[in-house]
Amino acid sequence: MTNDVRSPKRWLIGEPLSSEKLEHQLLPKHLALPIFASDPLSSVAYAPQEMLMILLIGGLGFLTLAPWVATAVVVLLIVVVLSYRQLVKAYPSGGGDYEVARTNLGEKAGLVVASALLVDYVMTVAVSIASGVDNIISAVPELNEFRVEMAIFFVILLAGVNLRGVRESGKAFAVPTYLFIASVFVMVVVGLLRTAAGHAPVAESASYTVQGDNVAHAAFVLLILRAFASGCSALTGVEAIANGVPAFRFPKVKNAQKTLALMGGTAIVLFAGLTTVSLIAKVHYAESSCDLVGLKNCATAVQPSLISQVATAVFGADSIPFFLIQAVTAAVLLLAANTAFNGFPLLGSILARDTYAPKALNSRGDRLIYSNGVIALAVIASVILLIFRANVTQLIQLYIIGVFVSFTLGQSGMVRHWIRLLRDPETTGRGQIKRSLVINLFGAILTFTVLIVVTITKFTHGAWIVFVVMPILWLLMLGVNRYYRDVEVEVEVDATTTFGASGDHAIVLVGKMQKPVLKAIDYAIAARHDTLEAIHVSVEPEATEKLQAQWDAMNIDVPLIIIPSPYRDVAVPVIKYIKAHREEFGAEVVTVYTPIYIVGHWWEAILHNHRSRRIRQKLMLAHGVTVALVPWLLDSSELLYGRRSRTWAFPGQARSGEPRRPEMPVKRGAQDREVGAAARSTARNSASAPSKKGQDEGSLR
Amino acid sequence: MTNDVRSPKRWLIGEPLSSEKLEHQLLPKHLALPIFASDPLSSVAYAPQEMLMILLIGGLGFLTLAPWVATAVVVLLIVVVLSYRQLVKAYPSGGGDYEVARTNLGEKAGLVVASALLVDYVMTVAVSIASGVDNIISAVPELNEFRVEMAIFFVILLAGVNLRGVRESGKAFAVPTYLFIASVFVMVVVGLLRTAAGHAPVAESASYTVQGDNVAHAAFVLLILRAFASGCSALTGVEAIANGVPAFRFPKVKNAQKTLALMGGTAIVLFAGLTTVSLIAKVHYAESSCDLVGLKNCATAVQPSLISQVATAVFGADSIPFFLIQAVTAAVLLLAANTAFNGFPLLGSILARDTYAPKALNSRGDRLIYSNGVIALAVIASVILLIFRANVTQLIQLYIIGVFVSFTLGQSGMVRHWIRLLRDPETTGRGQIKRSLVINLFGAILTFTVLIVVTITKFTHGAWIVFVVMPILWLLMLGVNRYYRDVEVEVEVDATTTFGASGDHAIVLVGKMQKPVLKAIDYAIAARHDTLEAIHVSVEPEATEKLQAQWDAMNIDVPLIIIPSPYRDVAVPVIKYIKAHREEFGAEVVTVYTPIYIVGHWWEAILHNHRSRRIRQKLMLAHGVTVALVPWLLDSSELLYGRRSRTWAFPGQARSGEPRRPEMPVKRGAQDREVGAAARSTARNSASAPSKKGQDEGSLR
Repeated sequence: MTNDVRSPKRWLIGEPLSSEKLEHQLLPKHLALPIFASDPLSSVAYAPQEMLMILLIGGLGFLTLAPWVATAVVVLLIVVVLSYRQLVKAYPSGGGDYEVARTNLGEKAGLVVASALLVDYVMTVAVSIASGVDNIISAVPELNEFRVEMAIFFVILLAGVNLRGVRESGKAFAVPTYLFIASVFVMVVVGLLRTAAGHAPVAESASYTVQGDNVAHAAFVLLILRAFASGCSALTGVEAIANGVPAFRFPKVKNAQKTLALMGGTAIVLFAGLTTVSLIAKVHYAESSCDLVGLKNCATAVQPSLISQVATAVFGADSIPFFLIQAVTAAVLLLAANTAFNGFPLLGSILARDTYAPKALNSRGDRLIYSNGVIALAVIASVILLIFRANVTQLIQLYIIGVFVSFTLGQSGMVRHWIRLLRDPETTGRGQIKRSLVINLFGAILTFTVLIVVTITKFTHGAWIVFVVMPILWLLMLGVNRYYRDVEVEVEVDATTTFGASGDHAIVLVGKMQKPVLKAIDYAIAARHDTLEAIHVSVEPEATEKLQAQWDAMNIDVPLIIIPSPYRDVAVPVIKYIKAHREEFGAEVVTVYTPIYIVGHWWEAILHNHRSRRIRQKLMLAHGVTVALVPWLLDSSELLYGRRSRTWAFPGQARSGEPRRPEMPVKRGAQDREVGAAARSTARNSASAPSKKGQDEGSLR
Repeated sequence: MTNDVRSPKRWLIGEPLSSEKLEHQLLPKHLALPIFASDPLSSVAYAPQEMLMILLIGGLGFLTLAPWVATAVVVLLIVVVLSYRQLVKAYPSGGGDYEVARTNLGEKAGLVVASALLVDYVMTVAVSIASGVDNIISAVPELNEFRVEMAIFFVILLAGVNLRGVRESGKAFAVPTYLFIASVFVMVVVGLLRTAAGHAPVAESASYTVQGDNVAHAAFVLLILRAFASGCSALTGVEAIANGVPAFRFPKVKNAQKTLALMGGTAIVLFAGLTTVSLIAKVHYAESSCDLVGLKNCATAVQPSLISQVATAVFGADSIPFFLIQAVTAAVLLLAANTAFNGFPLLGSILARDTYAPKALNSRGDRLIYSNGVIALAVIASVILLIFRANVTQLIQLYIIGVFVSFTLGQSGMVRHWIRLLRDPETTGRGQIKRSLVINLFGAILTFTVLIVVTITKFTHGAWIVFVVMPILWLLMLGVNRYYRDVEVEVEVDATTTFGASGDHAIVLVGKMQKPVLKAIDYAIAARHDTLEAIHVSVEPEATEKLQAQWDAMNIDVPLIIIPSPYRDVAVPVIKYIKAHREEFGAEVVTVYTPIYIVGHWWEAILHNHRSRRIRQKLMLAHGVTVALVPWLLDSSELLYGRRSRTWAFPGQARSGEPRRPEMPVKRGAQDREVGAAARSTARNSASAPSKKGQDEGSLR
């Protein structure tokens, strides 16, 4: 063992990306807006609808209160946007509410936000897709009986797209999002113009009245609050930008803030405009079809969504603009659902980084991990859609709770943050900080109120599920963290740690006389251990005799020990042999060489390596054993080389701001095609195969 | 590397079981009968019923033909039993029809039998459980709406019992089986005695007539044949003994033959007796309830099974013997289903041994493999029961085909076998052989005829499914075999195979400074490679600085190389380093040491080792690399020691005749309890921990 200090610079490991290339991969504002704003903007598709629907429970008269409730929602939206502008400036690393809560309110509060976000992502998928399906059915009412099937189809579609690894392209998002903004805006403007011209649009449900419940005084207030709570679903998705700051181009914080403001402004305009036109057109959207007095066959009738009723009223039934708006709305909602597929793995890797989730989730570009996350999200969302029959109203009850939990804790964390800064006498710009403090304080109080309101009003309508699931997630994450902490303590180094060994013995496990075993023997010999022997556990006498004969014929310089196995077991006799050997020769390190097959197809994994893995697992329980895996590359492993030279766009990459490895060409060793199969397989596995100097760095041979 | 030849006898590896102990584990005839005969005897519960039911389609008059059809079935049963007596003598190794077909008719015929057997096992579970549920419902008709649920419940129950690993105890089988034989026999005798006394039993369905189809001449014959085919379901399970010869005590063949004869005789007596009494009591069991003229509310009425109607007629409705017979019949049917859970993995391991199935299936006592097999069987059987609504009649259509395919090919194989012996001039005992030839030839022709009949008559009733599934299985098994064969060719040794290497370099992958890494370093040092260095891939600059500081502080004698990783990837930079190193230093073997956590709980596997496994898989694609796993045993791994010292009774063990390892006590190292946790974890993992001389062989430390 030599003591050379070799400089790694002598072997340069890939050029780091130039700053230009890095900048190119980040998002400009006009592409960031669609990616991050699709979620909150798409809420416009269902928020006014839910708000007016709740008001209608009290009867037609309650609709006069709609402007006030809508104004309250708009005010809250402004406050929340302003609050997030502060948050983004103070925490530009992209941790969002989770980081703010964890840093300022403690670990357990951070975990509450994390569990709320996990629930959030699932609900984003469910609600967005249910609403999208709602709009499709509003255009084509015959599809109503396939509501749940369509919803699950879209979930599977999105999962498939994400498993394939399509890059979350800003351009792909841009078209539907800007189209949506434009068309709804145009619809609102046209509706207002027509009203001004004395030709106000009239909704198809305008002629239906609603049998209002007799609402007593206390229930009156409760109803208003419920409507307000439902209207607050317009705020869902606002926090996404806070998680995506690293993805913006420089100056990141300012760009993020501008985009936030733009997004907030657009959402307000669309929400307010849509609500206004709905009230003008007298859209009556009831909780269930049969609440509408005058609607024939109410049990089977389909209530078109609010946005579709407005489109019909403004542009005419089954007109081109009508179908356009339905299509674009559905598209934006699908994109909003897709943000969950991108945000979920990102959240998972952040939690893993903080050891609240299995460390495996923190692997960048590990296709398997992301695939598992995508599949998990798709399955859970599908189950939710099944249980609630893709009913937007019911799903929203669960949705808002999670959102407002993170809002509240995020704002409260910011308040703590500013207070901490103010306490520090060296802080400058105290005026600005005090202003920020007021904004966040106001935001925290307001969102907390909404949270209380939402909880009380929606608890019995399904929200209790969230209050069962979130604590379970919280406990799991805490449990994982405590487990990892205990393990860290267990493996912590102390001054006296030494593992000492007084010998170096090597064993090669020999089954049949085949190339992989020969390779293992050669490698064991090359490693020059103190002692080396080959061990064959005799399970079938015939095979053992054949092996002995071949061994002698090949004149292998390694002694072959044959151990009988009365119970056809391989591991236990070997372990006993090792124990006995150590008893005789002292505490030595025993290296057990065993071949392992490397294969290219997934189904080949079922056909190889299982028994050697079981043997290996048992061997490793004995003292002093280390298992050396000698890889044998089968022909099909060629596929792996090609696969690994291509890069893969993993979900969430676009919004994490991390650099993407440049595409590398697929290359195979040219020599392989010129020799026969047997020689080829030997050459593939030979240590002495010459490495090509100056070969393309992308190739790994 | 020394060249000592060490004698393995110096370290005695467990005493082989004494012959007494081995003999004790094998089955005496009185216990073998219940285990192997439960399947064919339980067929008596549904065969007469199905036979009479088909006859009744032609009208009441057809029942007069019943004795002839029953006689034909009995004759076939005798022929088949005699044929199997020959087979068992010629092939006592327990391969059964599969081995006979493979040896005498070729590989592809053997595979046909194998696929038939696989289908058979599934159908055995489905039919037996459906029939058992049928009998339970006959006793308690209110349960009829839960037919399918009950059936699936029993499947899950059996799967659970087998997953737990209950030994297929001869005694557990004996009671219900002998009780069944006794009670049905008594029932038949009592029925006949009553008839002789002029007090013949009358079935509850005797008063119902059947609207017979007008059966034309050709259809007449077809109907008789269909009834015969259904009656042949009484033969299912006869071949089980041929597969279980090794489990008998010496002399194995004679005992197996005697048991076969006993089983055949009992089946004949029960079948004939039951049919006779049914005809006397005028049991009318129709294909569907509404075919019975006179039965009120026929759509919802439950037709009690034939055996329950006979019991009611002979002993009286709701009498104790009635309930006893229902219970015992259901129990025997459950046991018959259980034989499939035992036979399935046995068949799997035989197929794996012959490389027609993944080699992993051939691992003895591998709990995981057997668990997977049990679960697979349970799931498929449940799906079948679901699809066919646990309807015995429909399920039997699929059942008989597979059974008679193996009968026919088995008998044909035996014919070939005898012909081959006769052709050999040195064979003695030719008279005996000619007799055997005649028996097997007659059997083959008869079973082939039945197979044709069954196929024609049942094809449209569901048998086509079998003709789709069996070829698929056949292709899969052939495919697996051809794949393994190609791999064998690929790894075949030739004279010039050499893997040569010209150097011995070792690398330790270092992440954080923790005990597992220190252990890996120590082991790498102990192995005394030519050169050794530690490599740290820098993903986070802070962590890297901390590591460097700790490394220097601990004065480790191994150079630490730090490789930057711009894309947060670990494997690729290491591979490039190795490549560059080999370019510089020649074709050396590079041993990469990496720690691996050994854990005790299943859920811990999710929390460890994932990323190092991914890195390892990529590293092994590079030339000259071998990966040395240095195990780190966490506290929870203590559980594994306790687990492995206990033996586990795997399904099929009782009937395979293999020796069972004796129970070994659970023992933990006493020293562990006396030292602190940190020292304990070091001690657990230290190579220099003294092995205890003369310690109980069951303990593996």
